[in-house]
Amino acid sequence: MKKIGFVGLGSMGLPMAINLSKAGFAVTGFDLRAEAGQALAATGAKAASSLSDAFAGQDATVLMVVNAAQAEDIFFGQNALAAMPNGGVVVLMATCPPGTVAALAARVEAAGYAFVDAPVSGGVVGAQAASLTIMGAAPKAVFAKAKPVLDAMGSKVVFMGEKAGQGATAKAVNQLLCGAHLAVAAEALSLAEKLGVDMAQMLDIVSGSAASSWMLKDRGARMLEENPRVTSAVDIFVKDLGIVLEAGRDAKAALPMASLAHQLFLSVSGRGLGGVDDSQVIAAYRALQGRGD
Amino acid sequence: MKKIGFVGLGSMGLPMAINLSKAGFAVTGFDLRAEAGQALAATGAKAASSLSDAFAGQDATVLMVVNAAQAEDIFFGQNALAAMPNGGVVVLMATCPPGTVAALAARVEAAGYAFVDAPVSGGVVGAQAASLTIMGAAPKAVFAKAKPVLDAMGSKVVFMGEKAGQGATAKAVNQLLCGAHLAVAAEALSLAEKLGVDMAQMLDIVSGSAASSWMLKDRGARMLEENPRVTSAVDIFVKDLGIVLEAGRDAKAALPMASLAHQLFLSVSGRGLGGVDDSQVIAAYRALQGRGD
Repeated sequence: MKKIGFVGLGSMGLPMAINLSKAGFAVTGFDLRAEAGQALAATGAKAASSLSDAFAGQDATVLMVVNAAQAEDIFFGQNALAAMPNGGVVVLMATCPPGTVAALAARVEAAGYAFVDAPVSGGVVGAQAASLTIMGAAPKAVFAKAKPVLDAMGSKVVFMGEKAGQGATAKAVNQLLCGAHLAVAAEALSLAEKLGVDMAQMLDIVSGSAASSWMLKDRGARMLEENPRVTSAVDIFVKDLGIVLEAGRDAKAALPMASLAHQLFLSVSGRGLGGVDDSQVIAAYRALQGRGD
Repeated sequence: MKKIGFVGLGSMGLPMAINLSKAGFAVTGFDLRAEAGQALAATGAKAASSLSDAFAGQDATVLMVVNAAQAEDIFFGQNALAAMPNGGVVVLMATCPPGTVAALAARVEAAGYAFVDAPVSGGVVGAQAASLTIMGAAPKAVFAKAKPVLDAMGSKVVFMGEKAGQGATAKAVNQLLCGAHLAVAAEALSLAEKLGVDMAQMLDIVSGSAASSWMLKDRGARMLEENPRVTSAVDIFVKDLGIVLEAGRDAKAALPMASLAHQLFLSVSGRGLGGVDDSQVIAAYRALQGRGD
């Protein structure tokens, strides 16, 4: 595996493609926005002139796209997969529902290609530092082939199983925790606010006690700001908790806490705030508690 | 402040009283169970022969009792407070509803005593290591007087305000996070279980990613055990989340995530499992998902 195509050069994909290039892979990256391709080319990698360039002649092509529907459209709608040499490896790293990933993998394999289900955790910071957690699933021989590619983008590459969808499942469990923790942090801080507690002191206490979570420590301070910078948008959790609930529906598993957290993110998005920082899920609580009426 | 009475020598109270004694205070401890008094006496402190001994002649008396009703009964039902010299300080460290604490403090102060609202976080481990977080509220002069006593039991003593109830409020916010995080961890692991994920691997991933919480890391492994040792019982969170919701009701603050978490703990307690380790809130999910039918 030397020649790697990369589709989706967004805030995550661009630094991931750059890290692949730095690790010695010959990277050809594509994005609908030409400036993203130019940003990649500026680091010494190659900007693809068309989508099929990111597949033609490649040993593997990594997809860091928005969702499974976009991946499917790229593979079969726009027929880019057919440009890849037979036996080539497709690595899907976007967050997608496990069932959808399994179905997509079956189609890709039927067309004569290998498929690696490999969603990530760690955000833009992890993408830039090549310190992502990567939850991979593929037949063992395929996973072994793809491992050096994954290692170039993450510091913790975990083999979740041989079936496509098992990586997506791990990611869904991960996102259930992240999204619900965000909503719980917002609920706790909104209670403190309503009760007139010194918020900075409160955050300091719960960040250092058994009450702490990674999300509380990372997003807590921004929950107290009116217009914080956006590290990840509310609509990302509208999507990701939707995927969690779809995984639950497919398995007939009841997920009451995740379902409630999803409703809170939805209500913030529905107020036109889908693009603001996800710490602003606290806006749902401020509406509930009557602040700012 | 040299002579300190201590009421409630349970799994938290006994090590706290011992730490006070080690720090040089003259401690007289009382518990309804005589063996708890003997355990304290074995460390060099004094076992009170009666409840009023823990008040008579003391500069301050610390209460680490089950709830506010028990404190009220000790003060006014059994009239132990009257045994204390006028101007003595009462330190209530149990987890109680903020409104109840404020009302109790008013009665104690009207009787001629000072009151410190000082709930703790950190569990048995923190009580033993004198590393508790203590959320204190009292008039400034009273708090200053009590501070050396609190410092002997905790490593982080925070002044939350001058009004009794402000400490209890901080503790309620803390417990909202702890209880909800436990329920979310159980939900995530039950989804992983239902989907057939390797649980140990899943726990390893989410313990090291943005999905982590203190509770997940501490209780996660025990959620996978059938009969784990009890570090804190399910019924403690039935009580504590009840206090959280009471604080919310008093302030007319909606707390949907905490309310849902409370229902899950209640359902486990209702199945006769109130005394098992709180990690077993996952039993609510196993019932929901149909495992063990």
